[in-house]
Amino acid sequence: MERKTLLTDCPDAQGLIAKITNICYKHQLNIIHNNEYVDHSTGQFFMRTELEGIFNDETFLMDIDQALPAGSHRSLVDSKRRKRIVILVTKESHCLGDILMKAYDGSLDVEISAVVGNHETLAALTTKFDIPFHFVSHEGMEREEHENKVIEIVDAYTPDYVVLAKFMRVLTPSFVAHYHRQIINIHHSFLPAFIGARPYHQAYHRGVKIIGATAHFVTNDLDEGPIIEQNIRHVDHTFSAEDMVKAGRDVEKTVLSTALSQVLEDKVFVYGNKTVIL
Amino acid sequence: MERKTLLTDCPDAQGLIAKITNICYKHQLNIIHNNEYVDHSTGQFFMRTELEGIFNDETFLMDIDQALPAGSHRSLVDSKRRKRIVILVTKESHCLGDILMKAYDGSLDVEISAVVGNHETLAALTTKFDIPFHFVSHEGMEREEHENKVIEIVDAYTPDYVVLAKFMRVLTPSFVAHYHRQIINIHHSFLPAFIGARPYHQAYHRGVKIIGATAHFVTNDLDEGPIIEQNIRHVDHTFSAEDMVKAGRDVEKTVLSTALSQVLEDKVFVYGNKTVIL
Amino acid sequence: MERKTLLTDCPDAQGLIAKITNICYKHQLNIIHNNEYVDHSTGQFFMRTELEGIFNDETFLMDIDQALPAGSHRSLVDSKRRKRIVILVTKESHCLGDILMKAYDGSLDVEISAVVGNHETLAALTTKFDIPFHFVSHEGMEREEHENKVIEIVDAYTPDYVVLAKFMRVLTPSFVAHYHRQIINIHHSFLPAFIGARPYHQAYHRGVKIIGATAHFVTNDLDEGPIIEQNIRHVDHTFSAEDMVKAGRDVEKTVLSTALSQVLEDKVFVYGNKTVIL
Amino acid sequence: MERKTLLTDCPDAQGLIAKITNICYKHQLNIIHNNEYVDHSTGQFFMRTELEGIFNDETFLMDIDQALPAGSHRSLVDSKRRKRIVILVTKESHCLGDILMKAYDGSLDVEISAVVGNHETLAALTTKFDIPFHFVSHEGMEREEHENKVIEIVDAYTPDYVVLAKFMRVLTPSFVAHYHRQIINIHHSFLPAFIGARPYHQAYHRGVKIIGATAHFVTNDLDEGPIIEQNIRHVDHTFSAEDMVKAGRDVEKTVLSTALSQVLEDKVFVYGNKTVIL
Repeated sequence: MERKTLLTDCPDAQGLIAKITNICYKHQLNIIHNNEYVDHSTGQFFMRTELEGIFNDETFLMDIDQALPAGSHRSLVDSKRRKRIVILVTKESHCLGDILMKAYDGSLDVEISAVVGNHETLAALTTKFDIPFHFVSHEGMEREEHENKVIEIVDAYTPDYVVLAKFMRVLTPSFVAHYHRQIINIHHSFLPAFIGARPYHQAYHRGVKIIGATAHFVTNDLDEGPIIEQNIRHVDHTFSAEDMVKAGRDVEKTVLSTALSQVLEDKVFVYGNKTVIL
Repeated sequence: MERKTLLTDCPDAQGLIAKITNICYKHQLNIIHNNEYVDHSTGQFFMRTELEGIFNDETFLMDIDQALPAGSHRSLVDSKRRKRIVILVTKESHCLGDILMKAYDGSLDVEISAVVGNHETLAALTTKFDIPFHFVSHEGMEREEHENKVIEIVDAYTPDYVVLAKFMRVLTPSFVAHYHRQIINIHHSFLPAFIGARPYHQAYHRGVKIIGATAHFVTNDLDEGPIIEQNIRHVDHTFSAEDMVKAGRDVEKTVLSTALSQVLEDKVFVYGNKTVIL
Repeated sequence: MERKTLLTDCPDAQGLIAKITNICYKHQLNIIHNNEYVDHSTGQFFMRTELEGIFNDETFLMDIDQALPAGSHRSLVDSKRRKRIVILVTKESHCLGDILMKAYDGSLDVEISAVVGNHETLAALTTKFDIPFHFVSHEGMEREEHENKVIEIVDAYTPDYVVLAKFMRVLTPSFVAHYHRQIINIHHSFLPAFIGARPYHQAYHRGVKIIGATAHFVTNDLDEGPIIEQNIRHVDHTFSAEDMVKAGRDVEKTVLSTALSQVLEDKVFVYGNKTVIL
Repeated sequence: MERKTLLTDCPDAQGLIAKITNICYKHQLNIIHNNEYVDHSTGQFFMRTELEGIFNDETFLMDIDQALPAGSHRSLVDSKRRKRIVILVTKESHCLGDILMKAYDGSLDVEISAVVGNHETLAALTTKFDIPFHFVSHEGMEREEHENKVIEIVDAYTPDYVVLAKFMRVLTPSFVAHYHRQIINIHHSFLPAFIGARPYHQAYHRGVKIIGATAHFVTNDLDEGPIIEQNIRHVDHTFSAEDMVKAGRDVEKTVLSTALSQVLEDKVFVYGNKTVIL
């Protein structure tokens, strides 16, 4: 028995659920999980259908295509294929460490193809888990030159996603465009509060009582991409900026790995500057 | 345009979503929101379909009935009919007050037909909102006699649900049976911890770091019915049992009114001793 | 037995706790609760000492003053005096309603002297609780003229604090200065995200997964005063901007009444643009 | 400059704070942080005082002892000495992994002397971090015999604490007595709900909407020791028992390492069956 997931993202129309589920029924595909959502403000329809059975992808998708209105996107994803990621890091280990541990014990069903760092700090940790670490220093290099070196390494692994696990470099539009909707970042604040550098220090000076973290797809505008997951924890006046940095680590790593898990399970639709998670 | 909600609860079978949505399509009913869930461990299917259009209830449900397997439950609920509740109370005002306020400002779309108390304490608050208050003392009465008096008053209002908003009386099986799946209770602990009397005092003596509240349907076993909603708040060693009682009020009232809101919107399926919330 | 709270806010110096607690001991005042905090980054010392005994305020404070370094603030507050507030509102009832209910049932130990609205909407609710409501329309008035009318009414009640319970007017610097550190506001976002108007609509368009509320003292800069309390709740893609508005109400009212409770119990020190809560 | 922490736990008496802080002042020790708490229901006083200066431990503690009433406990702890732990495990890696990662990157200031497992599963993970792993199978052994082997290994490291990081064995009273107030356990439920085996399966069958975890000191009664830290996460009807197990991992590991961090910083007083955390 194969298991595949049909992802549909199209203009809303009457009878869409009936049409799609009819086709599944006709092809003798059993629906294991099904979720739909209609954004009535824009008239967009989203559907995620986990199917089990014997698939003839070509005829099945031909039927689906005939049923969908113009301007539709659909894909049929093999639910059992393990996806590949490359992780970009700088010096901080907590997010990388959490993903390494979760891939190691199977909590996260993913293949970590490689880790790329602009510092060498995390090489030792990465190689403990028998994963290749590539050190690409940015010292004395133009931003584009450095990114091109990174791209060359990353592309050799043909990853499904690139995960920025506390990669403290601003990316150029051409790097972002090269991995369209493939880059997931963890920002160490509750966006859109404290955009930009040193958000915990900003938070400390503002005297907030809550700190947070945001995992999002990366687009050209810094810290402005579609949000996948956010969470927070309470702090109080006894927290220095450094205490906030430390306290934020557990939130950051949990938010990033939760977001990553949803993306890897094909639950996240990107829609304008938002996500629909089914 | 009418708006109705079709609720389906039946043994799982292939093609159910296709069949039901086909019938909606055939009857020219537009699906506004649709949610399904299959419990694969027991093979039970749940579906909640908000529909808009011109309804012929009889022929529509006839078609639905033909499509469903044996042992199915289905109902078609008018989404616009405001439901009626009767609230049972003792002396504490926070849960009653929150429901009164939310009905007053429209946050909760409900008609509070009456409040019944076994003490007179909350009469003044209730009547501020022009809602009838019935004082039915239990003093010097057998439990059954008292309950029969309450039933007589409640039944006169033909409520959809009976809400126990800190009603500090143990109910007999015959009272519970009289309002099968119609009674919603707020228990002031995170069930199943601290079943029974004085849960905050139990929590204090156990030295917990979290207190909680649970809204559930009432069945014969005390504090054992299907859970609808739970939430918690953190406490620490500085909280006395009385501080916990006070701190728990905001949790209790929010949990109860959240549960009530979900029930009133026909989102809650009871299934064995659990709920499925779509 | 009297009960008073000594609040000390001064430059840090060696032996301060010893000196202050010695004086309490010498005056035969029993320490019921004591909390201190030193901000080592700025060298500021904060102490809140709940005392029980027979007070000679004059000699006690004379001793305290001699013990404290130059530039110190201290006050001795009667813990049993019920504080007075005036509440300013526009049209939304949830925050006002929560404070009314909590004052009614004693959860909040406060006297609500009056409610002032720039709309008449909440007059009916307020007067249910036998509290005077003053309608001061801003229609056809300059901002200052309107504020002067409000000030005149508020000042007649000599309140300890002015609570903005969804008062949807921008205040002038002179109004704010008139009630220096006396105005508490609820802002319907997790500040500093979504400063300004219609924060839920901003949040909706940003596609956030969390919404929040912030209670703060009001200073001249809009939404920039010292934060007292913040909290959040999770939302998802199914929430419209209006759903967020509705979902945010329980957070807003709980955050505001929690902040108010801490202020009324003399637990909140304002320090620069921050608060220290002991 | 040395830094030490004075921990005082004694019957309450007038002037205690004054006396203790006077002695600190007299010995020219600067108070960096100070926290006290009085449990007025039992008349017990707790104080944690972080001090900086040149210490003469003997004369300082002699002065302290003279100031305290009969039945007092006090200790003076070197704040800079890194504490040692031995971790006991079975097969699950998430709690062990989190402590390994946090010790590795310095988030947790601790020396992991060794890991002892009754299965060999986690040997590979442990030794990646250059920490000795001892496999002590319980197969074919009496409980006491097995525990004696474990004790022999653990004692060789003279650890400050023994951490049960998902060690799935019931301990005998003699093992518990051997490490009085030194054993910290993570229980995978929100205690006292779901005491005993397979709490997630119990939670699943009860239909709860929240799952939790509890870190506590171990005493003779199973899952009954003083609670240090608890936290929760929300679940819904779509979670199978296995999904709950998986979802609970992030809560468990964060609760355990938070509790451990507080214990390592000498913030946790055990008092009867409760903890006071200063």
